[in-house]
Amino acid sequence: MSIERLIDEEPIVATAGVEILQQALVDQAASSAAAEWRPPAAGTEDALARLAEQGLTESANKTAIERMLAVRPELVDVAIARDVIPGMTDTMFLHAGPPLTWERSSGPIRGALIGALLYEGMAASEEEAEEIGRWGGITMAPCHHHQTVGPMAGIVSPSMPVAVVRDANGDGIAYSTLNEGLGKVLRYGAYSPEVIERLQWMDKVLGPVVAATLKHVGPIDLQALIAQALQMGDDGHNRNRAATSLLLRALGSGLVENESVPLADRAEVFRFIEGNDHFMLNLVMAAGKLAVDAASGVAGSSLVTTMARNGTDFGIRLSGTGEQWFTAPAPIVDGLYLGAFTKDDANPDIGDSAITETVGLGGFAMAASPAIVGFVGGTASGAVRRTRQMYEITLAEHPAYQIPQLEFRGTPVGIDATMVVRTGVQPQINTGIAHKDPGIGMVGAGLVEAPMECFTKAVVALAETL
Amino acid sequence: MSIERLIDEEPIVATAGVEILQQALVDQAASSAAAEWRPPAAGTEDALARLAEQGLTESANKTAIERMLAVRPELVDVAIARDVIPGMTDTMFLHAGPPLTWERSSGPIRGALIGALLYEGMAASEEEAEEIGRWGGITMAPCHHHQTVGPMAGIVSPSMPVAVVRDANGDGIAYSTLNEGLGKVLRYGAYSPEVIERLQWMDKVLGPVVAATLKHVGPIDLQALIAQALQMGDDGHNRNRAATSLLLRALGSGLVENESVPLADRAEVFRFIEGNDHFMLNLVMAAGKLAVDAASGVAGSSLVTTMARNGTDFGIRLSGTGEQWFTAPAPIVDGLYLGAFTKDDANPDIGDSAITETVGLGGFAMAASPAIVGFVGGTASGAVRRTRQMYEITLAEHPAYQIPQLEFRGTPVGIDATMVVRTGVQPQINTGIAHKDPGIGMVGAGLVEAPMECFTKAVVALAETL
Repeated sequence: MSIERLIDEEPIVATAGVEILQQALVDQAASSAAAEWRPPAAGTEDALARLAEQGLTESANKTAIERMLAVRPELVDVAIARDVIPGMTDTMFLHAGPPLTWERSSGPIRGALIGALLYEGMAASEEEAEEIGRWGGITMAPCHHHQTVGPMAGIVSPSMPVAVVRDANGDGIAYSTLNEGLGKVLRYGAYSPEVIERLQWMDKVLGPVVAATLKHVGPIDLQALIAQALQMGDDGHNRNRAATSLLLRALGSGLVENESVPLADRAEVFRFIEGNDHFMLNLVMAAGKLAVDAASGVAGSSLVTTMARNGTDFGIRLSGTGEQWFTAPAPIVDGLYLGAFTKDDANPDIGDSAITETVGLGGFAMAASPAIVGFVGGTASGAVRRTRQMYEITLAEHPAYQIPQLEFRGTPVGIDATMVVRTGVQPQINTGIAHKDPGIGMVGAGLVEAPMECFTKAVVALAETL
Repeated sequence: MSIERLIDEEPIVATAGVEILQQALVDQAASSAAAEWRPPAAGTEDALARLAEQGLTESANKTAIERMLAVRPELVDVAIARDVIPGMTDTMFLHAGPPLTWERSSGPIRGALIGALLYEGMAASEEEAEEIGRWGGITMAPCHHHQTVGPMAGIVSPSMPVAVVRDANGDGIAYSTLNEGLGKVLRYGAYSPEVIERLQWMDKVLGPVVAATLKHVGPIDLQALIAQALQMGDDGHNRNRAATSLLLRALGSGLVENESVPLADRAEVFRFIEGNDHFMLNLVMAAGKLAVDAASGVAGSSLVTTMARNGTDFGIRLSGTGEQWFTAPAPIVDGLYLGAFTKDDANPDIGDSAITETVGLGGFAMAASPAIVGFVGGTASGAVRRTRQMYEITLAEHPAYQIPQLEFRGTPVGIDATMVVRTGVQPQINTGIAHKDPGIGMVGAGLVEAPMECFTKAVVALAETL
């Protein structure tokens, strides 16, 4: 500010904290501006002081975010889960979010597990599948523990085809299921015959055809594709129309000319991807999983390496606390509902897809995606405002993922848990909403904030590691 | 404004017109705000008064804009120019912009005519082609006189394949060439062997394959496609990456499975469109041509139905003055240059592509397309500001073409020539830049304003029709 402005303009009192001070100024008709300031979240003062005193966190975070941003994800193959996912067994069923038991599972997780048991031929009926779940006939494990991510219920069963995403700059590999489309689909907890038939088609036709096409056209650089999609109005989470279009452009010549695959199958696969603008979501998620796994395990780092929900709990993990989860009850999503569904039908927040927000996409990139508000609610200007706010709790601006509307500023990336508890700004996530009962499916989409409790627990635990 | 604000806040003097009044306030340190006001363009006061007195223009404009917005363009076919374009003869060469002779033609028009003569086999060498042009061996006519539009030089010769776009809501038909890509291409005045070979491939392979694919997949609703593309960061003029992606999605299943076309040709066509993000431009233009032709010929209407440039003149037409052109020297474009090229290499503004701005796209929709500034220059915030300004000179907000960033407001559409001369706000156009010499090609892209002289002449002429 120039010295002239100090002389020429009337002074304005800036206030922070207790509202009564600001109110006193307003009552006296004095100009004032209140900073949106809150004290650090309760119970974290000591931990923050200890981390500051120790002085390790800054350099640890630098290392962790550098590792996260160095990853170059490439889609290289589609394979069957049991053949490639480390630690996967014939009775293992992966799910979204932090660890969970059948008893604590919400409706959509139970519904998707029932569907997956029917699909695997391990149960002949809904009742039988529930019985198997109850007596512990399957092993449940978080996707995140197996280099894998899954949207919504996130169920990955042994026979499902999974995308294989490799780090071209390192040796990381990550996996995700292939996206089924919207509506009555397994990941939203539906398990009717059409859902099971689609899953069977996906392992018999979709997976092998995409795998053969990738062999024909070569690996697909997912980072370049996602970066382009952000310039085309995607956010990388609930709007993937541009990325899906670009993926289909990249696969298309192979689908036209690869005669090693029956023509009818190639045409069917083209139509399936063409008809599903969310197809890229799962691949963006696998790309994100590579990035967070690369950033994990840096002693002292407060970088958030996981935000994931299982429909019961919301869980986060930090780089400096490794495999440990910090959980809180999963919140209810504020959203737009399909048809006659209302908030009363909504299951609490669910899915590994908040990995997109963990790597600077989704709710963190909504300024690039004004059209998304038609799907998740809110306004375009609100989307810009919320993205701007996320810079307050992140360590970097993404070098590849840029927001044209903010004059090509990089998206806010790398959530620092200490900044979340200091500022009181919670990470914004956009997400689909599943029905709370098993067997129904999608009921809407909306916005939600990661619970503060996860971050306060995590910061306290991080301080204890030092 | 609430009455409290009048009492509580310091008054600000609003000024308009002569700057000395505003300056006097500034000198006295009084708060003031200058409106960007200019008197109507010189020589138009009488015409504006006469139009206002007559009182016909408002209802005439309502009729004209309604006709423009009622059009529903569909891509239905690709055919050979001589077979379908009304009035086309074997020696007719259509060009962009208002009427032109060989003598007054700029470099890119001459270059493209030379190339077209070589392509048609009417000349064996550059020299022979120039000779034919000079002695009048071909008939030159504006595309706009033949239900056709062409970008840049806009040359349409008898053997070229043209897209056929029909009005699903009426009986209009419009035509455009197919887009060749960027760089060394005929429409920028290049005519080297690679240019001619590409044109030959376009009539032998591209045209027939797209035509056969359209028969297979059915007509493509261009308005729906363009509307979606605006939600994906396109402007419809110099950024057509999303629209081209969506077109390829629409054509793709046909390219995969239509075995009536040789597989190698289908694969080549997929790759050609995939490699050319400007492919949709020509189709957007043909869709626009349908709209402006539907709006033409309404007595008393000051709606602009044509803005087009031939590299020498910038010309406009109004609905109420029918076929009459109002021209001014084509301006130089302010832009970003490729490689070592500079403004000194630039030909004046050229092409029928300003039809996109005439129908509420291009420069009028740049707020939807922040990423376009990487191609044409300027800033994202400037793009929003300029779109907002275009609402001052337009009759409507487009019901289908919406701008998410402006909370889904329709694009400003239907330029009213009387509003242009009253406000002094000139229509903003974004455009490619051709080298001024024949045979070179594209040198950059940028922004330009339609010359005020066209609008003053048009308004005076419109008043004379009453």
